[in-house]
Amino acid sequence: MSPSVGLLTIGDELLNGSLTDTNSSVIAQRLAEIGLTVQEIRTLPDAILAIADGIRQMTQAYDVVIMTGGLGSTIDDLTVAAVARAFDRQNRPNAAALQLIEEYGRKRGQPPHPRDLKSANFPDGATPLRNPCGTAPGLYFSTDTIELFALPGVPTEMLAILDESILPFLQQRFTLTRLEPERIVTLLGIAEPQVEKELEQLLLPPEVAIAFGVTFPFVQLKLRAQGAAAAERLEQACSVVAAHFKEQVVASDRQTIAEQTAARLTLAGKTLSLAESCTGGLISKLLTDAPGASDFFERGGVTYANSAKADWLSVSQKILDQDGAVSAACARAMAEGIRLAARTDIGLSVTGIAGPDGGSTEKPVGTVFIALADKNETVVTEHRFSGTRQQVRMRAACAALALIQRHLRD
Amino acid sequence: MSPSVGLLTIGDELLNGSLTDTNSSVIAQRLAEIGLTVQEIRTLPDAILAIADGIRQMTQAYDVVIMTGGLGSTIDDLTVAAVARAFDRQNRPNAAALQLIEEYGRKRGQPPHPRDLKSANFPDGATPLRNPCGTAPGLYFSTDTIELFALPGVPTEMLAILDESILPFLQQRFTLTRLEPERIVTLLGIAEPQVEKELEQLLLPPEVAIAFGVTFPFVQLKLRAQGAAAAERLEQACSVVAAHFKEQVVASDRQTIAEQTAARLTLAGKTLSLAESCTGGLISKLLTDAPGASDFFERGGVTYANSAKADWLSVSQKILDQDGAVSAACARAMAEGIRLAARTDIGLSVTGIAGPDGGSTEKPVGTVFIALADKNETVVTEHRFSGTRQQVRMRAACAALALIQRHLRD
Repeated sequence: MSPSVGLLTIGDELLNGSLTDTNSSVIAQRLAEIGLTVQEIRTLPDAILAIADGIRQMTQAYDVVIMTGGLGSTIDDLTVAAVARAFDRQNRPNAAALQLIEEYGRKRGQPPHPRDLKSANFPDGATPLRNPCGTAPGLYFSTDTIELFALPGVPTEMLAILDESILPFLQQRFTLTRLEPERIVTLLGIAEPQVEKELEQLLLPPEVAIAFGVTFPFVQLKLRAQGAAAAERLEQACSVVAAHFKEQVVASDRQTIAEQTAARLTLAGKTLSLAESCTGGLISKLLTDAPGASDFFERGGVTYANSAKADWLSVSQKILDQDGAVSAACARAMAEGIRLAARTDIGLSVTGIAGPDGGSTEKPVGTVFIALADKNETVVTEHRFSGTRQQVRMRAACAALALIQRHLRD
Repeated sequence: MSPSVGLLTIGDELLNGSLTDTNSSVIAQRLAEIGLTVQEIRTLPDAILAIADGIRQMTQAYDVVIMTGGLGSTIDDLTVAAVARAFDRQNRPNAAALQLIEEYGRKRGQPPHPRDLKSANFPDGATPLRNPCGTAPGLYFSTDTIELFALPGVPTEMLAILDESILPFLQQRFTLTRLEPERIVTLLGIAEPQVEKELEQLLLPPEVAIAFGVTFPFVQLKLRAQGAAAAERLEQACSVVAAHFKEQVVASDRQTIAEQTAARLTLAGKTLSLAESCTGGLISKLLTDAPGASDFFERGGVTYANSAKADWLSVSQKILDQDGAVSAACARAMAEGIRLAARTDIGLSVTGIAGPDGGSTEKPVGTVFIALADKNETVVTEHRFSGTRQQVRMRAACAALALIQRHLRD
């Protein structure tokens, strides 16, 4: 039986909207990879009574509790004191913790600040966990029924202690069975109800469950199979789904749309150049987020001003005057212009109105033209995207990446 | 007395690491703006008993509970059933909900799918809330002691119902006092312990509290004042802090570093062009995230390949051969080259090794050169950034924006 896990996150900044809790989903994903499922995530303020209560409730409800935040040397770091209070222990200087803090100081070539020594206070019976990226050690506290870990809230420090100390410990302490395999198919350009309707018509192998997720601007299908030969049936189901939605599939499993586009370009041995206007560098940024983009990406022009479109992309003054910078003609000229300037196999352009201003009756906010040029032809698509400026930009960038994928597939 | 608020978020995808809960911090921020503080955020799986239990516990503990997720027409949408179960009510078709669903269908020009009608089932006594962006209405359920709201998990739909129905309701239902004012000073290029040490030396007005936040790659100081003339003392404290850390301050309050940079450029009436290599368009993207960039941003070149650096930025073959693309000489040539090409007041360039590959003993991963050229001179800075590829890119982009701010200040 796999142990139950709860996550407890501490910090006023998470409760007043200053900060989004990204630690919990990172921890949850890491735990899922070793076969553990989180049953609850709870966020509490920097208030010692509330934290101590939360620790008591969570350790009663779950076999393993992992805390983040409130660990360190500033006045609002209350986690260690709350652990001591929750289990009625004394909090006092811990020799092992002190040693870890001094070691970290030596590594950095500077002795610990007196304030840092506060991080050496631990409840009786707690064990410090080495922090490779910061001063405050993590905390481990256990009894017959409790496995409690507390980590700093700084993401790099949290992750370093999780990977170095906690995950190996949990794998040794419990007999974990990896979760049944899951496959993810990511679709763009089709709404969830339509996907659901079409899925009902498909002949899928038995005992394959499909769950939905909407991660802007995508619809994600998560397929799981149970029973005998689950892996084969899962593969089969994936093939059926991918074949049916072949125009909309833009990524698989944990790959992003940009990673899949990059992989397709590299595989095809094609080079790419970009001319971005309303997306303002977003497509370049997405394609270069992962290493290896230099294999296919020659250059990108963020041609915001008309002068840049004329200079770098040879867009004619006539197009800029008559059709305007947001037009099918301009998108076509931009894609052809960047392709010639960069001497790449593919030239891709995006021009549009991301908003919130700049729209007109004829070309409302959300109007975006995307063009793709290769040596044979230039394809131009016109879109009306809804949403905020950020959403229009992201929809346009993803539609552009999908257009590259479609081009490579056809 | 301000009512206490708890947020309850539903969804397996939030507990297995597939998705980060961004709704809660958005809601928390919106509530903070009208003077409400969230006391707890809890995330539970798509399991009806766990959700019903969570609803009971949260509505006992807090005056107002706002739920997100699990509302809609798919099989794993269990929120409405869980509300009915928690308060022992019957779940049945609700005429008002049905009308809202039909209205939304009419607006979209297509009748509701039979499946959508599931979203018209409501517990006895619950009221549907209009959803301007989707099919499933929100839910409002109240008794003498309970104010419970349930919203869809799709962020646009969540936010639309929150803004249209819930916030106005809460402002009318409770006498809310705005929180004491808070000012935020965002610093770059200085570590938290150093900031804390220097703050101790500063003479600040009385009863001003300073809390720390670390939002990669920044250190944020949050200042609050209490007592008489709090606003004046808060302003005074802000001035003292900003003057002391003037080399490190890159943003104030809710403004991002890019927004502050954009505002400074616009105010100074200076135009900017960018030549990005390792940041791959990230700086262009950050500067164009907010509207109005066309006032100062002429163009950006994402010159990934050497051919692009030669063509567009006139970087000489000699520099590319002898110094290499990652060098102070190349950064200087890129900044001067883009400035001349774009005919802007300022030309800014970034070239470096974001990793994980490509480093050498002499130029390890994280080595980044940033140059800023104006009509009088070119400044080049050299950096060794630590962290992952994403972190190196973000640190480089922020350092580049900070360099623009420094240039405009001096």
